[in-house]
Amino acid sequence: MRAVVIHAPKDLRIDNFPDPAPAAGEVRVKIAAGGICGSDLHYYHHGGFGTVRIKEPMALGHEIAGVVEAVGSGVAHLSAGARVAVNPSRPCGTCIHCQEGMRNQCLDMRFMGSAMRNPHVQGGFREHVTVEAAQAIPIAEKLSLAEAAMAEPLAVCLHAANQAGPLMGKRVLVTGCGPIGALMVVVARYAGAAEIVVTDVADAPLAVARKLGASHAINVATHASNLDPWRAGKGVFDVLFEASGNQAALRLAFDLLRPGAVIVQVGLGGEMTLPVNAIVTKELKLRGTFRFDPEFELALRLMGEGRLDVKPLISASLPFEQAVEAFELATDRSKSMKVQLTF
Amino acid sequence: MRAVVIHAPKDLRIDNFPDPAPAAGEVRVKIAAGGICGSDLHYYHHGGFGTVRIKEPMALGHEIAGVVEAVGSGVAHLSAGARVAVNPSRPCGTCIHCQEGMRNQCLDMRFMGSAMRNPHVQGGFREHVTVEAAQAIPIAEKLSLAEAAMAEPLAVCLHAANQAGPLMGKRVLVTGCGPIGALMVVVARYAGAAEIVVTDVADAPLAVARKLGASHAINVATHASNLDPWRAGKGVFDVLFEASGNQAALRLAFDLLRPGAVIVQVGLGGEMTLPVNAIVTKELKLRGTFRFDPEFELALRLMGEGRLDVKPLISASLPFEQAVEAFELATDRSKSMKVQLTF
Amino acid sequence: MRAVVIHAPKDLRIDNFPDPAPAAGEVRVKIAAGGICGSDLHYYHHGGFGTVRIKEPMALGHEIAGVVEAVGSGVAHLSAGARVAVNPSRPCGTCIHCQEGMRNQCLDMRFMGSAMRNPHVQGGFREHVTVEAAQAIPIAEKLSLAEAAMAEPLAVCLHAANQAGPLMGKRVLVTGCGPIGALMVVVARYAGAAEIVVTDVADAPLAVARKLGASHAINVATHASNLDPWRAGKGVFDVLFEASGNQAALRLAFDLLRPGAVIVQVGLGGEMTLPVNAIVTKELKLRGTFRFDPEFELALRLMGEGRLDVKPLISASLPFEQAVEAFELATDRSKSMKVQLTF
Amino acid sequence: MRAVVIHAPKDLRIDNFPDPAPAAGEVRVKIAAGGICGSDLHYYHHGGFGTVRIKEPMALGHEIAGVVEAVGSGVAHLSAGARVAVNPSRPCGTCIHCQEGMRNQCLDMRFMGSAMRNPHVQGGFREHVTVEAAQAIPIAEKLSLAEAAMAEPLAVCLHAANQAGPLMGKRVLVTGCGPIGALMVVVARYAGAAEIVVTDVADAPLAVARKLGASHAINVATHASNLDPWRAGKGVFDVLFEASGNQAALRLAFDLLRPGAVIVQVGLGGEMTLPVNAIVTKELKLRGTFRFDPEFELALRLMGEGRLDVKPLISASLPFEQAVEAFELATDRSKSMKVQLTF
Repeated sequence: MRAVVIHAPKDLRIDNFPDPAPAAGEVRVKIAAGGICGSDLHYYHHGGFGTVRIKEPMALGHEIAGVVEAVGSGVAHLSAGARVAVNPSRPCGTCIHCQEGMRNQCLDMRFMGSAMRNPHVQGGFREHVTVEAAQAIPIAEKLSLAEAAMAEPLAVCLHAANQAGPLMGKRVLVTGCGPIGALMVVVARYAGAAEIVVTDVADAPLAVARKLGASHAINVATHASNLDPWRAGKGVFDVLFEASGNQAALRLAFDLLRPGAVIVQVGLGGEMTLPVNAIVTKELKLRGTFRFDPEFELALRLMGEGRLDVKPLISASLPFEQAVEAFELATDRSKSMKVQLTF
Repeated sequence: MRAVVIHAPKDLRIDNFPDPAPAAGEVRVKIAAGGICGSDLHYYHHGGFGTVRIKEPMALGHEIAGVVEAVGSGVAHLSAGARVAVNPSRPCGTCIHCQEGMRNQCLDMRFMGSAMRNPHVQGGFREHVTVEAAQAIPIAEKLSLAEAAMAEPLAVCLHAANQAGPLMGKRVLVTGCGPIGALMVVVARYAGAAEIVVTDVADAPLAVARKLGASHAINVATHASNLDPWRAGKGVFDVLFEASGNQAALRLAFDLLRPGAVIVQVGLGGEMTLPVNAIVTKELKLRGTFRFDPEFELALRLMGEGRLDVKPLISASLPFEQAVEAFELATDRSKSMKVQLTF
Repeated sequence: MRAVVIHAPKDLRIDNFPDPAPAAGEVRVKIAAGGICGSDLHYYHHGGFGTVRIKEPMALGHEIAGVVEAVGSGVAHLSAGARVAVNPSRPCGTCIHCQEGMRNQCLDMRFMGSAMRNPHVQGGFREHVTVEAAQAIPIAEKLSLAEAAMAEPLAVCLHAANQAGPLMGKRVLVTGCGPIGALMVVVARYAGAAEIVVTDVADAPLAVARKLGASHAINVATHASNLDPWRAGKGVFDVLFEASGNQAALRLAFDLLRPGAVIVQVGLGGEMTLPVNAIVTKELKLRGTFRFDPEFELALRLMGEGRLDVKPLISASLPFEQAVEAFELATDRSKSMKVQLTF
Repeated sequence: MRAVVIHAPKDLRIDNFPDPAPAAGEVRVKIAAGGICGSDLHYYHHGGFGTVRIKEPMALGHEIAGVVEAVGSGVAHLSAGARVAVNPSRPCGTCIHCQEGMRNQCLDMRFMGSAMRNPHVQGGFREHVTVEAAQAIPIAEKLSLAEAAMAEPLAVCLHAANQAGPLMGKRVLVTGCGPIGALMVVVARYAGAAEIVVTDVADAPLAVARKLGASHAINVATHASNLDPWRAGKGVFDVLFEASGNQAALRLAFDLLRPGAVIVQVGLGGEMTLPVNAIVTKELKLRGTFRFDPEFELALRLMGEGRLDVKPLISASLPFEQAVEAFELATDRSKSMKVQLTF
């Protein structure tokens, strides 16, 4: 079979790839749709991020869904033809963090399409993937496979929301309106936020955010003063989801947050220079959020029951053979929100 | 009467000061002891910190205790001769933050010896202070006035501990071993931490920390590798109290903290450049802590019942007329932990 | 003016009532709509509940809205003609509980139409009420006064939801489907619950709950076994809102709740005999919830922006002169959800 | 080998018992000390409690410590001669509750000396036990085996304390002063409670509680009015640890607890009739607590470092051949706190 494999920055190829039959407890899934994530783009443009760098060719992709083709022995709950989303996360289940209920912090995590581990765990932009049966989650009939491939980034955002405490009735700021920021709007709206303001430096994604339910979508490159009403007193927002990974976005928010407000840092941002005095004197709470765990199945459930709609985010779908074109398109924020590959 | 007044950086004078009789609801306290705080030193050396700068002469001091001299009308619970600690904090009681139980975030706070408000609220390094009766808290018989003057920094540390969640059985790191770091050791020990490691770049304060109950006191300038045992897995400490305000101290800790660990930033540190990726991927929780509220009375209660002993921290006491000498001594970390003035 | 006044059980009269002009800081509101609450029915049928008994004639009613008629001196933000909901809660603002952010637990609470305090605080089923200006909250243009009169019970339910922790993605059981149980369905849906099951012993209110968004509405008098799917393992529900005040309803739930589940007891229920062993071994968390505080304004905001719709709950509106008929109608659960009086 | 085996109420025998060699991953421990728990007494006097009843002969005991005699293959961290406490809890590690970090709620728990599971898991009052190596925890040199056998009840109390939130500076009431209530005093003191009041209906255990650090120990059968100072306002205590399992004890406390206070129900109490209105109107938080998980190792650590002293609780030690006498002695609260068997 063929796969979309990164060899070096800007060197993305369609390679042949081994296609093993499922062993006991495994299933083989014929992939239908795969979303391009920001981390995929980092591998494509820069060969990685921070200290995480590709050291060998690696199939990209971890937002995938498809149809079960074959089932290994001992797999009772799935059979060929089942439509599934593939959970790219495989924690060990036995390390200290797995046993304390933080499986996303597993000491021996195997996460598809990530170069954190060596040898790398191959990703899911392939015609077929063979995974543990527990990683293949059946989806609702009315859910398309393209939507099912959104389960992973939606799960990231549900997990981020869970770090923030209750959102019901809260005033929420989202900085950065890429696919993750836009999904944070969807999730904050779903969780009952009273007001959701989203910021970016580009107009196109802000227009999408308005459709998704943002109360206000503000271009801070051109209309920064539109945020002034939320500077009242010591600041007004209860929660910030920082989804840009951009130091300027985070710094901008300190004056807008009320004392004791929660900042959930969703975007990976490398080194940032921050006004720690503001964190101290306003007693802000800055929390990281990383991937997800039970939220993957929750994402599928909520989409499957029609409680959340992610379709407005899917801006383009290209055949995987045009992966380079798709990756370039995904990089252009004036045109793209989420770009998916089809297989 | 006379007061210790800062006029400009390095210009600390003994000035004459008005001495009003207590109005209704007020008491006049003859001050006996006043501790020199890090913020007092900032005013002395630099005229302030961050955007907070002295704009007019200001009596310093907010760690004070003494004896009630006179009582205004309508004050029932205090009479002349009562030994009291003076709470330097006077929130308005009616603003949004006061009404939601965050009185330390009052929009109209009057805090003694602070240049945050204009005109500045005069501090307590004076022969007498006249304050609201509610600010004068009677102390236990067996508590000395010098100890009572430690209620304020102890309250700061109790409030910081309250930001961390339960400490019982936790592994705690304290970075920075000035008076606040040393008191954090006392508080963490009192709250049942299982292990307390404290770091600094000077040996003298670390020796005090050992007396106060630190499990390990490590000079990271000379013995940084002594921290290696706490790097196991993804890191070991459950809680960090960052009391140095120093970026290097905070950065050092990221590898030592377990996933989901809490960082309480106690020290004011200005701009810091931080590895935000570590906060994100380990899902760390960085929280500011600012001053105190009910913890002031708790500090006096715990000291008064002998549950906490702060006496080892008081390294010198000088007459207020020698304030400049006392401030210079307090600046010398090889000789001083907490320096107090006597009146 | 005239008011709906309870004199003794079953002795509800239309009495003349003083009609003072607003003093400084007050407003006079011409009441338009007033909802009959379960506690009003308790006063009507039994003269009170528990130890709370009417000791003198008392105007009932605390779910009221109307139009500002006159404004006392010093009231800047309201003028005649403003459409407002009246917050029946008036905490003192200065007691220990007010100062710690639990104003609903005020030691000196004045709550309209409640016999907890002596002399009783007169209620709002009157042609006019004169209240502190801060108790009169302007409402959105598109909100009817009948809906605005729902702010109080909705606030009760928002406060109850806040006791439960985050509801997003949670499986929620609501026992008892009177107006409060039905509003809990609305609130749980708004806060992003993944599944909401509501139970009652009458079919009519369950039909309303289905319209309001309940996933399943089960008559436990006739179809108790329909709850069996949620008994899997040690039980499935994450949260129970007990809104019946009925011991049988609460007892039924213990097998349906997962370990560590939260029970929010909303309904006042007097003495209940409970299987405490189940609470212990499953580590359940039973929490009371009482009235509301900031949730009153939140309720108006959410209704005003169209995020919540309470109109399906208003089952009848009668002129206040027919109060007895209205109270009898409100008592008949086969016909009534929320009955309102008009003035 | 011989074991202390319950056959029926009041029919406790010294029986011969199989003594298997350790399999791979197991160790055999020569037991030195075993504490008699309240549940052991329930089996002895009544054949069980609630729905949990002995259905076959069962060795009692789950508070045990001893010396490793033999080690199965693959056990690296233990060797013969090691002094260990035996953790009686063996969760499956894979069920939903184990994976979410609530291993004490395991769906397939094997807990020594408990009749909850059929066939019963045999207890530890035996000359030797063979367990998973992970259940044998090495102890500090200075810790006696008698103290090490206190790790289990101490772990129960540490787990209970963890349900209460931070105790530092809190006012704590403990109702019931058997071994668990007395250990709650020890733990609350260790965790920094500001004030600890303990109640019972017998004088002897209250005298022990005073030695353990209780601020006040009150016999509510003879001096109930001594509790009056804590009735001020709406009540004063922040936290109640209910360790009697007695309805009267719990009911007594409702007037003593402040609004929002936490009740941790530690004692199993069967059916209790409770004033639910008080829970609702004061917004009390009643939480169950069941056994322990990581707290077992923490208990050994804290005792091993001398931070907690449980020795004053051990009131008698008898050879296991005198088990019946020991069980009768343990039942007599005027003479006994914790009675241990020696082997």
